[in-house]
Amino acid sequence: MRNPNWTFDTSQCPGFKRYEVIDRVERDSWIHHTEHWHVRTPTRYALVNITGLAESAIARSGLWDGQALISAMHITAGVYINDAESGLLQDLATWFERLAPAKPDYLHHQTGEDNADAHLKSLLTHHMVTVPITRGELDFGTWQQIFYAEFDGARDKRILIKLMGLSSSP
Amino acid sequence: MRNPNWTFDTSQCPGFKRYEVIDRVERDSWIHHTEHWHVRTPTRYALVNITGLAESAIARSGLWDGQALISAMHITAGVYINDAESGLLQDLATWFERLAPAKPDYLHHQTGEDNADAHLKSLLTHHMVTVPITRGELDFGTWQQIFYAEFDGARDKRILIKLMGLSSSP
Amino acid sequence: MRNPNWTFDTSQCPGFKRYEVIDRVERDSWIHHTEHWHVRTPTRYALVNITGLAESAIARSGLWDGQALISAMHITAGVYINDAESGLLQDLATWFERLAPAKPDYLHHQTGEDNADAHLKSLLTHHMVTVPITRGELDFGTWQQIFYAEFDGARDKRILIKLMGLSSSP
Repeated sequence: MRNPNWTFDTSQCPGFKRYEVIDRVERDSWIHHTEHWHVRTPTRYALVNITGLAESAIARSGLWDGQALISAMHITAGVYINDAESGLLQDLATWFERLAPAKPDYLHHQTGEDNADAHLKSLLTHHMVTVPITRGELDFGTWQQIFYAEFDGARDKRILIKLMGLSSSP
Repeated sequence: MRNPNWTFDTSQCPGFKRYEVIDRVERDSWIHHTEHWHVRTPTRYALVNITGLAESAIARSGLWDGQALISAMHITAGVYINDAESGLLQDLATWFERLAPAKPDYLHHQTGEDNADAHLKSLLTHHMVTVPITRGELDFGTWQQIFYAEFDGARDKRILIKLMGLSSSP
Repeated sequence: MRNPNWTFDTSQCPGFKRYEVIDRVERDSWIHHTEHWHVRTPTRYALVNITGLAESAIARSGLWDGQALISAMHITAGVYINDAESGLLQDLATWFERLAPAKPDYLHHQTGEDNADAHLKSLLTHHMVTVPITRGELDFGTWQQIFYAEFDGARDKRILIKLMGLSSSP
């Protein structure tokens, strides 16, 4: 990892700028609520804990029971669920780099790009998760935290969250 | 893999103890049905075929058409879909260990933990799947089986299944 | 990769034969629409851009807001989202082969099979994605494309797409 500058939550990462409600559909007791989050991490690589952002979006949506699809809208970033312990975050970074190293000789770089490793890292972490929402909250185990994994940052990017489910009142 | 003691279905794995219905919401012909399964594998590592448990939960839910989110509630376990052939299960174990080896020198271990490899293996397998349910059954190909991959077992853990969809009667 | 014969879209890949509507449920403004796509790639390995097929299925379903689960129905294939740039597709192929190599000595091969690497590659790419649909269209970033990754082709296979959500009219 060339820039092991991990940011652990969005309040420490000024690149998490704003959310935009893209669409909202309500029918009877059904809610579909879609947001794009606009982000720009200061560094090329970053693992950012977005659990709090997801909780805020759940509150905004009014969802009582259902799911949220959280997905990177770019192909050089990932979304995954794991631990927020700082040593482990560095272990993850080392591991991503070992399995999907940054190096010059990818064929993709013949187009002028230099980020083929970021595409491989995106596949390795997977670009999306679906999270369960029960009684208005993330139905998570104690240590589960949602992370945005940026592998080609320092540019404007977006994360999608689409919440789908039932409101609390029938 | 330090303990290559693979258990192939939950009837052979006494650590699959019970299911707990966490919540159930019905509106018109809509059903949301959420369970936690309480498990404790006898070994540190195990690949357990949970397809039958998922089928039982579908039957309990009454779902006719929709989906089930099946997710490890821990960050040292995975859920994936693949083959139940015993040789392949050992190939998978060897492969998990090759790409995400157990070894002492992870930074995460400075906290007193010894399971950093389990976190990496959880990312490698992915911690969740969404499975399709059509006419009350898993809409699967012939060989698809759902597995719980335990990488830090011999302790109490939970698996979430959230079923969301339409009942058979309008 | 033994046969690096990448096919970039389904019009170039005659093995994408037909779609079959498996089931369709409509209740009030709710639509659940399930298709199986019948495919047979000419080569053992192929990365096929199925974004256009997904868009056609969305149009057939009439979905306005919701999600589509797109899943390989086989355990030797994957579905992932990334770039369609031809150099990168070859980088991906090289990377899949480096991390999950085809070789004779897998235990799975004692059954007479020769495709253990395809099972590992299926886990590496993941076999399914959930994609967001907003205002009747894939809610994607500029470069996101959906790929079917075949790792044991030249035989009949199926891909499932299950669309779930709200129609445009209440």
